[in-house]
Amino acid sequence: MADILSLLNWRYATKKMDPAKTVPVEKVANILEAIRLSASSSGLQPYQVLVVTDPAIKAQIRAVAWDQAQVTDASHLLVFAAWDHYSAERINSMFDLVNQQRGYINEGFEAYRQKLLAFYPQRSPAENFEHAARQAYIGLGSALIAAAAEGVDSTPMEGFEPARVDEILGLAELGLRSVLLLPLGYRAETGDWLLGQKKVRRGIEAFAIWR
Amino acid sequence: MADILSLLNWRYATKKMDPAKTVPVEKVANILEAIRLSASSSGLQPYQVLVVTDPAIKAQIRAVAWDQAQVTDASHLLVFAAWDHYSAERINSMFDLVNQQRGYINEGFEAYRQKLLAFYPQRSPAENFEHAARQAYIGLGSALIAAAAEGVDSTPMEGFEPARVDEILGLAELGLRSVLLLPLGYRAETGDWLLGQKKVRRGIEAFAIWR
Repeated sequence: MADILSLLNWRYATKKMDPAKTVPVEKVANILEAIRLSASSSGLQPYQVLVVTDPAIKAQIRAVAWDQAQVTDASHLLVFAAWDHYSAERINSMFDLVNQQRGYINEGFEAYRQKLLAFYPQRSPAENFEHAARQAYIGLGSALIAAAAEGVDSTPMEGFEPARVDEILGLAELGLRSVLLLPLGYRAETGDWLLGQKKVRRGIEAFAIWR
Repeated sequence: MADILSLLNWRYATKKMDPAKTVPVEKVANILEAIRLSASSSGLQPYQVLVVTDPAIKAQIRAVAWDQAQVTDASHLLVFAAWDHYSAERINSMFDLVNQQRGYINEGFEAYRQKLLAFYPQRSPAENFEHAARQAYIGLGSALIAAAAEGVDSTPMEGFEPARVDEILGLAELGLRSVLLLPLGYRAETGDWLLGQKKVRRGIEAFAIWR
């Protein structure tokens, strides 16, 4: 367990990455796998992750992301993109996959499918998207620990224009909306003002309340 | 790294916990520490975690959480509660803490404080709460991995009436709103339909898109 806390202490929101260094594809694959295995509401996994390596696309995204250099200095830019809606088709697709993989039909599980079908598709896309977006943040939590376990630096970012990133990546056609950027790379040895700074969090006595 | 993936594969949304087993307080402390160390937008940590052990309070919460037995069978019920608003006081309090802990004033950091002060407090509480709630999900991502590392079972839950939980815990007076429940305990040897079932996720080729 000390390990998980060490990883969380090691990581920081890297402000300057070394553009000459590339994260090995096996490490990227492991980080993606940690995201893919993460929990999500009803197991629907209502988001996808785009892995951008094309320098031209990264440059376009940087231009709509407050010109943050990590977007292009990172070898791999992850873009978490949430479902724009919970459609019946998407819900059924996930329940069908579960049945297929487990090899049988569970009655309680089928009743749960009907419950979701009676609830989500009728709800507004805006409300559904907001719920889907939250699930992507669970994946981000996993990604930050998994990246640290690989010795890979990362910078979680909400500072970008989602509608523009959606355009650049053609996300609307996929029924997705961008919610988070996560550049993956290696910290530069110089030029990162945050490197070596103390990590500051509220004390546990101010964070947790026992009842 | 294999470790993180093993932990994610080991965990599952436990459906039946053994009410006779208690999670040692050191393990709960480590899980809380993983949440506390988690990343959050601008480092504001806009949520707190309530740790409920009082059986009477757990019973009250179970009654407004679809009668899910894990709420009372767990020895510790974590309640993630997000800030109901980003006030100037809350923003200043975090920036002041950072300055105090690092022992100096960083100009760029102070400019960033002003930027947040000019943006968040003027935005609607509803929009700010939604943003704060998302950050709690990063902490959930850490908590699920940290619990697994401790061999502790857990069940992330959105299925409850937040307004009722807020009342039970007196969260409004603390400027908080409940967003997630996470019972911590140990799986029962019998009676959990999900125990031993294959974990199903969309395949990586359907989850990640390379560009």
